Amino acid sequence: MVDPANTVGIPINHLALLKDELDIVIPTIRNLDFLEMWRPFLQPYHLIIVQDGDPSKTIAVPEGFDYELYNRNDINRILGPKASCISFKDSACRCFGYMVSKKKYIFTIDDDCFVAKDPSGKAVNALEQHIKNLLCPSTPFFFNTLYDPYQEGADFVRGYPFSLREGVSTAVSHGLWLNIPDYDAPTQLVKPKERNTRYVDAVMTIPKGTLFPMCGMNLAFDRELIGPAMYFGLMGDGQPIGRYDDMWAGWCIKVICDHLGLGVKTGLPYIYHSKASNPFVNLKKEYKGIFWQEDIIPFFQSAKLSKEAVTVQQCYLELSKLVKEKLSAIDPYFDKLADAMVTWIEAWDELNPATKA
Amino acid sequence: MVDPANTVGIPINHLALLKDELDIVIPTIRNLDFLEMWRPFLQPYHLIIVQDGDPSKTIAVPEGFDYELYNRNDINRILGPKASCISFKDSACRCFGYMVSKKKYIFTIDDDCFVAKDPSGKAVNALEQHIKNLLCPSTPFFFNTLYDPYQEGADFVRGYPFSLREGVSTAVSHGLWLNIPDYDAPTQLVKPKERNTRYVDAVMTIPKGTLFPMCGMNLAFDRELIGPAMYFGLMGDGQPIGRYDDMWAGWCIKVICDHLGLGVKTGLPYIYHSKASNPFVNLKKEYKGIFWQEDIIPFFQSAKLSKEAVTVQQCYLELSKLVKEKLSAIDPYFDKLADAMVTWIEAWDELNPATKA
Repeated sequence: MVDPANTVGIPINHLALLKDELDIVIPTIRNLDFLEMWRPFLQPYHLIIVQDGDPSKTIAVPEGFDYELYNRNDINRILGPKASCISFKDSACRCFGYMVSKKKYIFTIDDDCFVAKDPSGKAVNALEQHIKNLLCPSTPFFFNTLYDPYQEGADFVRGYPFSLREGVSTAVSHGLWLNIPDYDAPTQLVKPKERNTRYVDAVMTIPKGTLFPMCGMNLAFDRELIGPAMYFGLMGDGQPIGRYDDMWAGWCIKVICDHLGLGVKTGLPYIYHSKASNPFVNLKKEYKGIFWQEDIIPFFQSAKLSKEAVTVQQCYLELSKLVKEKLSAIDPYFDKLADAMVTWIEAWDELNPATKA
Repeated sequence: MVDPANTVGIPINHLALLKDELDIVIPTIRNLDFLEMWRPFLQPYHLIIVQDGDPSKTIAVPEGFDYELYNRNDINRILGPKASCISFKDSACRCFGYMVSKKKYIFTIDDDCFVAKDPSGKAVNALEQHIKNLLCPSTPFFFNTLYDPYQEGADFVRGYPFSLREGVSTAVSHGLWLNIPDYDAPTQLVKPKERNTRYVDAVMTIPKGTLFPMCGMNLAFDRELIGPAMYFGLMGDGQPIGRYDDMWAGWCIKVICDHLGLGVKTGLPYIYHSKASNPFVNLKKEYKGIFWQEDIIPFFQSAKLSKEAVTVQQCYLELSKLVKEKLSAIDPYFDKLADAMVTWIEAWDELNPATKA
């Protein structure tokens, strides 16, 4: 069945997987015309739009999409003084959407991301692949050389311990990008014309103990398993740094997933990233991060959480203490960030009261 | 130029990379007809053929290949009593070839492996890809989501620490297999018809601290960096276990590479693996390994080498002591294996005396 408002011509998937258990979070400052191309895949789902910048501006959403929209005034009203933990004038504001969602799963995507094609020319249903990734176990304790052992046509290879073949629950699915790769400003400046054309047909678990650069452009996660750690930090307006929001979240979630025995996957699905951001503007946002990450990464590589930390919230609060202790020496910013991490958890718990007695 | 003996029709690559610095090691019990298909790529290189089984049998090698061949009598003559560390009636005997080589690099391949085709239909020059993998650095300390950052069209992504972008030397390149996947006997029995058709266009570094199942079918390494640790153990005739030779070597080399700051890559190149071995025979060879690996892998995961161990030999001898201490309780076999590890190093050093004063 082709929806009357569907200009792409691919039938809308009304049997969409997990339709009632997943929200799509989109941070934006502009009209969401990019959704037209996604209509066949995303129209069945509920959208949470987090409007950044001037709240008096109206964001147009293509007809037929079911959505709720929050601007800065809404965030301030809902969170009160705790709104200070939500970034302004930076796509880090998207994490407010994670907090107000009541669903089990989140898919978040940037508004300059379009539907990619696989090597056979078929449009990639990115969300469907993310859902498959999240519903399949991860294998963080031993590397499988044929990649995802649960995929059709694949399995665990000779020498893979049988006791590890059940895997663990997957908390995060990190998708990739064709066309404009997610490079930092220096690499953008050096290689302005580089485009990613390599379609790597694989999903893999990032091994336990290994950190990775998590990009927020094309990301899905299980809110119940890891939601409270998906905080995108303090970036943008009034902050000394930008473009490290997703990186920060990625380091935090990886340490916590490793501690709690949860899995993080990367690889498929690809989206088509249309537009390179301005490398000069990016350099200005990033340059402190480029220094700081040299200390932050060893910090996260050696961060140890206590046995007492058994919930994501407990883990996250422990991590915030470690940030305060160990990173504040780099810059007072980390002191502020550690406080914001605590505020974030307080706000999360306020909006998501425990349902079990 | 097409060689007169070339029945495949692809011109022989007389400008072969590292032609004088690489030996190809092939363990076999049969005539090496499989080399015909490899002629365009492998004829320029020197072969070391390790003949397993009955030494009175003659192994035919296709015309035009430059080779040396060792049978069991040769191994016994060259190593004397130390020949006990070289397995008999098992492809583990191939490691004798690593020991007698005088070259910097080794490529080892099984005689049931043929030239694979990439998705465009082009024949894959596996050795050329292995050489590229070995000559390019590895990145074991942080995961790059776009895979090998040194490949054309790729780079390090945003958030990758700049201090880690030089990478480390690559010691091992582990290639994969189309058609018959490298499954253990239970998986072969359960999925007799499964074939690997997924061509994953990626090379990646296996992160520090992560073990993997190393298959010896399609493997290359830098002898100078890791050769003395590439011991394929005691398998086959007179031993309680088979089909764990390459796994054993893989666990040992990974622990030592991690300790010495060397890289291990997996992914491209693919070979076409033609023939599934008999799963019933395999089960008989493997079944003890299937139990034992449940203890062996935690052992290797927690194995710590001392700061004093700075050469591969020193690391390997420390590892042999740990094997004796911690694994002998599983089975007396490990006591014998630990001794064989020491004999192997003695034999290696005898055949490869240090050239520096």
